[in-house]
Amino acid sequence: MKNNKIAIIGSGNVATHLFKAFQGNLDVSLINPHHPEDVSDDTDIVIISVSDDAISEVSSKLSDFNGIVAHTSGSQPIDIIKGHDSGKTGVFYPLQTFSKDIALNYSKIPFFIEGGSKNTSKLLFSVAKLLSPEVSYADSELRKKLHIASVFSCNFVNHLWALAESLLKVDDIPLSVLTPLIEETLRKISISSPLDTQTGPARRGDEEILKSHIEYLKKEHPEMTNVYKVITESILSTYHKNNERNKL
Amino acid sequence: MKNNKIAIIGSGNVATHLFKAFQGNLDVSLINPHHPEDVSDDTDIVIISVSDDAISEVSSKLSDFNGIVAHTSGSQPIDIIKGHDSGKTGVFYPLQTFSKDIALNYSKIPFFIEGGSKNTSKLLFSVAKLLSPEVSYADSELRKKLHIASVFSCNFVNHLWALAESLLKVDDIPLSVLTPLIEETLRKISISSPLDTQTGPARRGDEEILKSHIEYLKKEHPEMTNVYKVITESILSTYHKNNERNKL
Repeated sequence: MKNNKIAIIGSGNVATHLFKAFQGNLDVSLINPHHPEDVSDDTDIVIISVSDDAISEVSSKLSDFNGIVAHTSGSQPIDIIKGHDSGKTGVFYPLQTFSKDIALNYSKIPFFIEGGSKNTSKLLFSVAKLLSPEVSYADSELRKKLHIASVFSCNFVNHLWALAESLLKVDDIPLSVLTPLIEETLRKISISSPLDTQTGPARRGDEEILKSHIEYLKKEHPEMTNVYKVITESILSTYHKNNERNKL
Repeated sequence: MKNNKIAIIGSGNVATHLFKAFQGNLDVSLINPHHPEDVSDDTDIVIISVSDDAISEVSSKLSDFNGIVAHTSGSQPIDIIKGHDSGKTGVFYPLQTFSKDIALNYSKIPFFIEGGSKNTSKLLFSVAKLLSPEVSYADSELRKKLHIASVFSCNFVNHLWALAESLLKVDDIPLSVLTPLIEETLRKISISSPLDTQTGPARRGDEEILKSHIEYLKKEHPEMTNVYKVITESILSTYHKNNERNKL
């Protein structure tokens, strides 16, 4: 697969990072998404790495191209790629958030591959293996689960950190006072399931503390009350299923 | 303050960790919570590090002791310490989660101090400074805010990781596939406010994806639907305040 010629279409963070990661490994070029016609005829694989709603359009502009066409989106089906033999379409999905100017350690990024045929799957798999040891197959259904799981564990988590920051802002306390606690929470789930490392008033079923927190939020941060209540209810029902308890 | 004699009453993780941290710094002893009478007469400071509901009882058993008595709880007021001159009571609160057998880097743990008098505050502050450069004063009200903020940013976050784990379990995918993404999310908030690093479908206001996730959860994990909806609503109202949008 080292002899394959790859073109990455895109100008965003994912495209740029993939381009840099492939450099040195194989013959790769980075193509402006406004000029898909720049893809040379002898290219084996085109990876379209543009925003979800532009994939279809970019792919349809490659109608003269006869090689493999894959996209990098976790939330789009394989058949969003239009105008190509379905056996030569695929998905090449790196499960990571890419920031500009931040070098990433690709050996830790999991890639999820789908191909419209066995040959395409195998080829995209081998190409991903050049970048990372963590490569798996995943169809649309599994990618959706991975996407939802990453929404819970990253997007939602980041928002909870934003809420914590806003709770401390009035007293000029920076969110960084919580960093050691957050790092320790993350360290723990690297050795145990988070189901077993859960702590806090909801885990203990400490209704007095829970009520006092909700009272405080209702008064000072009413916009956070519902988030507090719903996650607390979720923890309570995970760990105190069979115990009698009052509704918050 | 290096000449002060300290007794820590407790047998749990916080007591054990504090005892180890003080060793070498000053004269410290660890006292069994069932035998508070073992505190020697020449002790300057007693730190009661027991469960919240036992603080009051342990403190009242120290009625013969005339030095400073402090507890280590983030969620209890200073006056839960009974039977002592209020000017000699205090709170010595380390903002960290302590696990058995895990050595911690104390230089990164923030301590929050309260004293019933100026002298007590200053003494407890200096003692905490022996362990960590991050020492601040915090009364009950501020400790409550810190506690709520740590519930949001650690306890709730850990629960979201548990939900993500359970989403991936059916396909035998370990939560560790999300670790690079989680680590990158955490790295980002060390350089920017989480308000600015928010990503994901709710941040983009991508209602199509949001609806498809909610449909999926309703069918496969109904117990998670409400958590998804409420945090999504919270993100939407943070970033799309002035835009027209439909209720999920």
